[in-house]
Amino acid sequence: MTLAEHLSRPFSHWMAGEGADADVVVSTRVRLARNLRGYPFPEYLREDMAQRLLDQVSAAVEVLGAEWDVYRLGEVDPVDCRVLVEKHLISPQHAQERRFRGIALNSSESGSIMINEEDHLRIQVLEPGLGVDTALAGASAAEGALGGRLDFAFDEEKGYLSACPTNVGTGLRVSVMLHLPALTLTGQAPRVWVALRKLGIAVRGLYGEGTDAAGDLFQISNQITLGPSEAEIAAGLVQVTRQVVEQERHARGLLITESRQEIADRVGRAYGVLRHAHLISAEEAMRLLSDVRLGVESGLLDRPERQKLNELLVVTLPGYLDRNAGRPLGRKERWALRAQWIRERVA
Amino acid sequence: MTLAEHLSRPFSHWMAGEGADADVVVSTRVRLARNLRGYPFPEYLREDMAQRLLDQVSAAVEVLGAEWDVYRLGEVDPVDCRVLVEKHLISPQHAQERRFRGIALNSSESGSIMINEEDHLRIQVLEPGLGVDTALAGASAAEGALGGRLDFAFDEEKGYLSACPTNVGTGLRVSVMLHLPALTLTGQAPRVWVALRKLGIAVRGLYGEGTDAAGDLFQISNQITLGPSEAEIAAGLVQVTRQVVEQERHARGLLITESRQEIADRVGRAYGVLRHAHLISAEEAMRLLSDVRLGVESGLLDRPERQKLNELLVVTLPGYLDRNAGRPLGRKERWALRAQWIRERVA
Repeated sequence: MTLAEHLSRPFSHWMAGEGADADVVVSTRVRLARNLRGYPFPEYLREDMAQRLLDQVSAAVEVLGAEWDVYRLGEVDPVDCRVLVEKHLISPQHAQERRFRGIALNSSESGSIMINEEDHLRIQVLEPGLGVDTALAGASAAEGALGGRLDFAFDEEKGYLSACPTNVGTGLRVSVMLHLPALTLTGQAPRVWVALRKLGIAVRGLYGEGTDAAGDLFQISNQITLGPSEAEIAAGLVQVTRQVVEQERHARGLLITESRQEIADRVGRAYGVLRHAHLISAEEAMRLLSDVRLGVESGLLDRPERQKLNELLVVTLPGYLDRNAGRPLGRKERWALRAQWIRERVA
Repeated sequence: MTLAEHLSRPFSHWMAGEGADADVVVSTRVRLARNLRGYPFPEYLREDMAQRLLDQVSAAVEVLGAEWDVYRLGEVDPVDCRVLVEKHLISPQHAQERRFRGIALNSSESGSIMINEEDHLRIQVLEPGLGVDTALAGASAAEGALGGRLDFAFDEEKGYLSACPTNVGTGLRVSVMLHLPALTLTGQAPRVWVALRKLGIAVRGLYGEGTDAAGDLFQISNQITLGPSEAEIAAGLVQVTRQVVEQERHARGLLITESRQEIADRVGRAYGVLRHAHLISAEEAMRLLSDVRLGVESGLLDRPERQKLNELLVVTLPGYLDRNAGRPLGRKERWALRAQWIRERVA
């Protein structure tokens, strides 16, 4: 599959709107950090070694089957890289310094491997809904297969070595993207974050570390990678996630019973504006899409379906808009194109 | 026709959305003030004389034919009186002090006669669009027919006498209701008002003297009633109105060519909110209906049609909502019912 094919379609496997607890959990990501023995971590890699490592990993990816392709970011346009970030297939950091970096992708985009990001390999699997077990199984299978071709740096005591100490051990990060409009609207979110942090759970914005939460979407993930087993880490995050899901559902229920008209008004107005606006910023779109999602999940609106809402999280972003317009858009052009796409898709 | 029949339907003849220049001129009103010889003006009428005058005028109205009925405001519920005001069939002042006052109405509501308002009779005809000639002919015909039964106070020098000196002479007031969103939006409206006032034209709000302009709707009318003939007064107001209409059309044209996306966005959002909101204030409804009307008249929206927009000016008002709910509504109930009716009607 060509990279252009990946980039021109909005859909990614994680957007399917399926899976457990999909009324609150948009998607699940499992990531395994791995490094190759005999190479410094990417930050300290000389260019010739970085190139060699990229070649070596690219060749190894063949073991994963014909579903997978490797793309070298040095040959990829910056706008295309931005779309990969917007689709959550690579990190913002990976898109910034593209030389000697790569990404392996399978055709459904459920699996992606960043090469020469902070670690030599970051194997990630994205699933719709709360799909930690499936995602972990997928990531472990890919890691196992690649491990037959690559010599991962492993220490009997510390486990898998990684560039950042917070990833040493299992190299595992499990994160879920949660839609928490009711906890936000009722002002309960900050209290929930405090509780989560005490449990060793990190709360982050939409594109990971250092990014803002937008559209009431948050990512929560395990902080600790060393000590517990992969299964324990995964189970812990699932347990915490289910508690947050229940709190969000409870808050939604209260809103609907105690402020039904106000909520119907809020989600109706959001739908009406998205359906009929001709100029819209990314920030406003995210905010209104959150209201519409709450409306759909609460039965106050009968459309659009979850998958369309998930796709709208991506197609309304600058990179995707610019790429599909075929050129860098001015601010107003972009607002107009965004509004046009939203009008067509929320109908 | 019973008063209840008049009050339960939103439609009045003036809302038809027809007539000349209906893209800017919502409606035309012609009013003739008349007083009966041998009676003090209403303000100074003793109760028994007020009653006698009401009886006498009510009997005289029979000459206008079976289309006409007289209703005594003393027997009319205050909420029903409020609806008569909202439909522009009586003045706010007439609804306030209801004893010994009456209203004669024809079935289409094109004609109404207030009895014992500021003058003994205020004969008015309402037409859709710029229909000054038709309205004046209708009012004059009614006045002539009533004059065969009633002895109107007339002075060879001053003309028809009236309670307020500003109505002496012809007793004629011609007023047009104009929708001027583009002059308002572009900030030109104040300059237009200054010019109109220099020409002896009064600019008033939606319900006449002392009321606010809402929804970019304004009433302009002649100030001078003594001196020029009725035909001259009418022709003068038509001429001035046509100038304002041209200015508004020019301003709309500029907006559409120079800020098409912004205007499309504005009217689209207004439509979307009206189509999907669940709680809405009268003020916001008026504001958004103005934007939607601009959108329809500019070809940016293909619905709702003018008549529905005119009806919405009335059905969203407190009196009409309360009356049709069958009880006085609380604020939030009224906002909800208003939103419901608008949702149904703008679709």
